[in-house]
Amino acid sequence: MSFREDGYAAVDWAARYLEGVGERPVLAQVEPGEIRAALPASPPGRGEPFADILRDLDAVLMPGITHWQSPNFFAYFATTGSEPGILAELLIAALNQVGILWRTGPALVELEQQAMAWLAELLGLPAGWHGQIEDTASISTLTALAVARSRFPDRRVVVCSEQAHSSVDKAARILELEVRKTPVDDEFRLRPDLLDLTGACAVVATVGTTSTTSVDPVHAIADRAGDVWLHVDAAYAGSGWVLPELRWSQAGVERADSLVVNAHKWLLVPMGCSCLWTQRPEEFRDAFSLVPEYLRTPDDVVSASELAIPLGRGFRALKLWAVLRCYGREGLQSVLAEHLRLAALFEEWVRDEPGWELCAPRPFSVVCFRREGSDEENATLLERVNATGELFISHTKLNDRYVLRLAVGNLRTTEDDVRRAWNVIRREGAR
Amino acid sequence: MSFREDGYAAVDWAARYLEGVGERPVLAQVEPGEIRAALPASPPGRGEPFADILRDLDAVLMPGITHWQSPNFFAYFATTGSEPGILAELLIAALNQVGILWRTGPALVELEQQAMAWLAELLGLPAGWHGQIEDTASISTLTALAVARSRFPDRRVVVCSEQAHSSVDKAARILELEVRKTPVDDEFRLRPDLLDLTGACAVVATVGTTSTTSVDPVHAIADRAGDVWLHVDAAYAGSGWVLPELRWSQAGVERADSLVVNAHKWLLVPMGCSCLWTQRPEEFRDAFSLVPEYLRTPDDVVSASELAIPLGRGFRALKLWAVLRCYGREGLQSVLAEHLRLAALFEEWVRDEPGWELCAPRPFSVVCFRREGSDEENATLLERVNATGELFISHTKLNDRYVLRLAVGNLRTTEDDVRRAWNVIRREGAR
Repeated sequence: MSFREDGYAAVDWAARYLEGVGERPVLAQVEPGEIRAALPASPPGRGEPFADILRDLDAVLMPGITHWQSPNFFAYFATTGSEPGILAELLIAALNQVGILWRTGPALVELEQQAMAWLAELLGLPAGWHGQIEDTASISTLTALAVARSRFPDRRVVVCSEQAHSSVDKAARILELEVRKTPVDDEFRLRPDLLDLTGACAVVATVGTTSTTSVDPVHAIADRAGDVWLHVDAAYAGSGWVLPELRWSQAGVERADSLVVNAHKWLLVPMGCSCLWTQRPEEFRDAFSLVPEYLRTPDDVVSASELAIPLGRGFRALKLWAVLRCYGREGLQSVLAEHLRLAALFEEWVRDEPGWELCAPRPFSVVCFRREGSDEENATLLERVNATGELFISHTKLNDRYVLRLAVGNLRTTEDDVRRAWNVIRREGAR
Repeated sequence: MSFREDGYAAVDWAARYLEGVGERPVLAQVEPGEIRAALPASPPGRGEPFADILRDLDAVLMPGITHWQSPNFFAYFATTGSEPGILAELLIAALNQVGILWRTGPALVELEQQAMAWLAELLGLPAGWHGQIEDTASISTLTALAVARSRFPDRRVVVCSEQAHSSVDKAARILELEVRKTPVDDEFRLRPDLLDLTGACAVVATVGTTSTTSVDPVHAIADRAGDVWLHVDAAYAGSGWVLPELRWSQAGVERADSLVVNAHKWLLVPMGCSCLWTQRPEEFRDAFSLVPEYLRTPDDVVSASELAIPLGRGFRALKLWAVLRCYGREGLQSVLAEHLRLAALFEEWVRDEPGWELCAPRPFSVVCFRREGSDEENATLLERVNATGELFISHTKLNDRYVLRLAVGNLRTTEDDVRRAWNVIRREGAR
């Protein structure tokens, strides 16, 4: 077969998958080890047709897929790999750029700069920030905190709230920094009056925490920070700034030394597009640059790798560019506004339902709630709901109580989907 | 337009690109800033058709693409994003898996284990090693060295040869380790008699160094290492172990604590497939695990993120699986054997040509050579050759001399391409 025929078949497969993904059980219903056991023990000696890949994707792997693309996926932060983003991945791989130096991929470097400037404009960030794309928020935050530590080598503390993401702990582990967790108020926001920045090289403010999407008071934190590096983790909620009505949550972010927003979370870009901005690229370069001889070129251009951990760099900018263009500002706004509307609806239904309670304010598209009863009962409820395959939700702990989370964020999710989710949750809760 | 129509158009675009890539100037012939200046200053307000992306890929970006997919790309390590790998990226994005926990992507976790076991078998590695896929070798090496440091927190030195890759320096910078460079012999291999492992938590042996593809004596290093963590960097050359005739270069690797092989270098997988194995997954878990409450699940399965730096994990295994299946052992062997043959031919032509010299042994598919004359003359020659657009080669420094490198590694490269490259190099050298 030819690349064209195989390619059309792959497109058809993807189209059918996306058309029907809402009908599939959302959470994979397999036991650990089941998928691996269904795979051959050894690779083939001779090459097989690509059609076999498509066949086994259905026959062998599909039962082990948890459908992040499903309109009924409401766990963690719901995401979308949108159609322009999916096709951009094909183009990225066809071009197979490796951005180790400017000259090895000038379009990669410059489109990355420009797409990040476009996104900064869409989100209302200050002009002129340096932007670069990393694989995950874990890497973005590690990168930012490594710069902070490099700036203040004698300060070995990073400060954040009790609700900060585990990637701060992971980065601190790698950087050998102590994490000082600051208590939060009753809306799960860092309490700036309790901030202790003694010995701190960095403070992390979160806009949209993982559990409740609470928004730390960035201005108050910046007021206290002095020369301490201010990293803002807006991995999920930052995409919301495309909407004027969510810009309130950006207050103070213009004072950040670095900022991460994951375009692969709530901005329709497939996995692997964590957007990292800084006001201080020269400090990034001080922290990371070690240009060896075999990478020197006559081009008087700073390589992206001099400001980042990895040497190699894929053409991730192409998918961000494709999504920003194919949706445009209005398209993105209408998708995110609808998610907010659906989350508000769900919140209202929970509020109005006897025997159920809301557990946190809802600034964005995530609702935290629980049923009256014990933690065990709520945990059992969650398992029962997810076992139906009709939807997938996740949980957290707030004030030591087990809490359910419903996160709206998939492009295909409609009001009917959210209503059905609520019906299933209530039905299972009544059992 | 529909996803299917846009998708077929994207496949057609990629097919045409790959069919014609050999005709394009390999090294982008633009000035810094030129591509960015050709892009609109702001993102569109309204969404645009996907066809516009394809149009502007040709009209705006193409002059800024350095063609890593070209058969005439001979710089750094030549790579290939092969056709099954390209189509797999489309499928990966369509499924948009996020492997934060086993249950969020059982097929992702288990296919990754199995594809890594398949690759281990193809390469002749010991059975039973734990394998995981990282984005780049920089991240793989950082991960391994972080584990080593975590094991021996009081030892702050990592030892490698003078020829080790810059990713060791980068990782050491992030981990605050001192790098002790060991001298090499006259074939650019680490001299084990000069190894000083005092205070070392890790020693890095390289199989296939970046400049000359020299092979460190892994057995002798392991003999000296004792409990010091032995990380083997076979990012480029490890793929060669698919060939029985290159297995000699694997001697001692079975004693490694960790090993990195980039399948996106010489194994036909598109960018973003750095394969990291370890004999000691429990030490990876000790170094990285910090499972927070909101990620706990009843599944009794260790999450991939507990053994790695990033929390999120894409479905990279799918492209490795697709390439291993569509080529099979024999297909991979025939591609790599041909690359070896072509590199040997080129080496022979240089050896036989008056006024030219070989500058290092050629264990794999990279030839180091230079023309008689000064460093400046060779540097000028390199620039002239690359400016023709007919091929792209890179350089290094060996024994303080400027040396040219020709790396064979693209799937499409034929004997005619290598012959033409040599003719251009000689022609420009004679000017």
